[in-house]
Amino acid sequence: MPIIKLNIAYDGTHYCGWQRQTARHTSSASHQSLATSHQKKTIQETIEDALQKIFKKKIKVEGSGRTDAGVHALAQVAHFKLDKPFDITKLASAVNAYLPKDISVISAEEAVKGFHSRFCAQRKIYRYCIANSAAKPLFVRHLSSWVRYPISIAKMRRASKFLLGRHDFKSFQASDRVIRKSITHIYKIGIKKSRGSGLFPFIGVSNWVVIDIEASGFLRNMVRNIVGTLVEVGRGRIKPQDVKNILTKKDRRSAGPCAPAAGLYLMDVRYGRL
Amino acid sequence: MPIIKLNIAYDGTHYCGWQRQTARHTSSASHQSLATSHQKKTIQETIEDALQKIFKKKIKVEGSGRTDAGVHALAQVAHFKLDKPFDITKLASAVNAYLPKDISVISAEEAVKGFHSRFCAQRKIYRYCIANSAAKPLFVRHLSSWVRYPISIAKMRRASKFLLGRHDFKSFQASDRVIRKSITHIYKIGIKKSRGSGLFPFIGVSNWVVIDIEASGFLRNMVRNIVGTLVEVGRGRIKPQDVKNILTKKDRRSAGPCAPAAGLYLMDVRYGRL
Repeated sequence: MPIIKLNIAYDGTHYCGWQRQTARHTSSASHQSLATSHQKKTIQETIEDALQKIFKKKIKVEGSGRTDAGVHALAQVAHFKLDKPFDITKLASAVNAYLPKDISVISAEEAVKGFHSRFCAQRKIYRYCIANSAAKPLFVRHLSSWVRYPISIAKMRRASKFLLGRHDFKSFQASDRVIRKSITHIYKIGIKKSRGSGLFPFIGVSNWVVIDIEASGFLRNMVRNIVGTLVEVGRGRIKPQDVKNILTKKDRRSAGPCAPAAGLYLMDVRYGRL
Repeated sequence: MPIIKLNIAYDGTHYCGWQRQTARHTSSASHQSLATSHQKKTIQETIEDALQKIFKKKIKVEGSGRTDAGVHALAQVAHFKLDKPFDITKLASAVNAYLPKDISVISAEEAVKGFHSRFCAQRKIYRYCIANSAAKPLFVRHLSSWVRYPISIAKMRRASKFLLGRHDFKSFQASDRVIRKSITHIYKIGIKKSRGSGLFPFIGVSNWVVIDIEASGFLRNMVRNIVGTLVEVGRGRIKPQDVKNILTKKDRRSAGPCAPAAGLYLMDVRYGRL
């Protein structure tokens, strides 16, 4: 049984996230989904539908992890199994022909035996993009978040040091009642500022602040909660050293707000030698 | 009667252009527009609807010129008349409160007596943005056009020189049967290349080609037809000096194809001392 690995980029704006909704979640909304064609789909379903058109049967695709509604990806990884050998040379372009313009299969390859996009993932990198300017970004409103007040990169960098290493990140985990594992390892946090390009007309976006986080795994809403907290640090509402206390409190209420989904990109999923 | 001048930015992706459709044009589609709430509106109508909520009566807004479906603006100018004095200090933010996120009033000011956004316009500047890269741009697909093959900026610049000055631009005018004035004056054509930013994740967009055109006025589809022709020159299908012949032929069929609307931005409308 060949296992096919897909590298996928998507603009998550018009989707309710990566993950197929379970029957339990969608049952109350199923009437509506039949009534309106504008019901939002998941990215996983959209790719499964495209694969079904190629393989003439239902294909179950598993991703490296879910991304929330409105979150984007430059390199989400997913896999599926086939019951017989298949020439995948032209698979990526074949799938793209059936995919809408906001999802693109960058490449398709046959994976080694036992490969699983989620269980074999060793590290992931997320990027968060903030348009830091007085004027609200009009053209990139779905592609970044917006912070209108000045933020100090130096303070944010100092605060981010306390988050490096293996910790219980309960303070930065989604605050729903679901009990989940909350220990993970952050390897790197990079925070950069860059000037807006004068050429490409991103009106009013004078500065970009870009935050890259590399970790062994991410908890639900973890990047967005960290970014929300770092922005509070950047504008002087939280002291950099207080981030250490926020972490040790293991209480979501101690950290800053959850930053909007629009600025978040899954940049890379890394696998060891398989 | 005060005349109010508005400076407006919009993402034209989800609109069927600036101009309100006349009754004659929409009559066949009116059934559909009642049936579906997703019928595309014009930008002019959307702004008029927002103003109606503020002034509690129908306001007729006139723009400096129409932009086609999918064309954007950083600074469209429009005006409307009021029958009594009005404090416009907070007008821009009041209108923005009623406008969707893809239209923004940048500023509102009282214009001098006799001001007319279209008749008084002396120059306009349009910008055309091309994502010039092997991979199709996913995130900026509505904000730029895409040319996958290499294009020579030097050749495009040489060709553009033949278009400067006052000419009959019939070869670059929309090829419908409507007879329109086709003489106008191009003051400047600027063609620049810039590297894609490594930070903001515009996947695969390694280079941008940006074309700025400043003219006394623009014919229907003129920028897009000029850009389509210049791209043909840039990739070596038309010789730079042949653009001179294309111009003198006064025949739309002699020029290159019409470039997609998504890359086009109305950048500025200039008025003399009024």
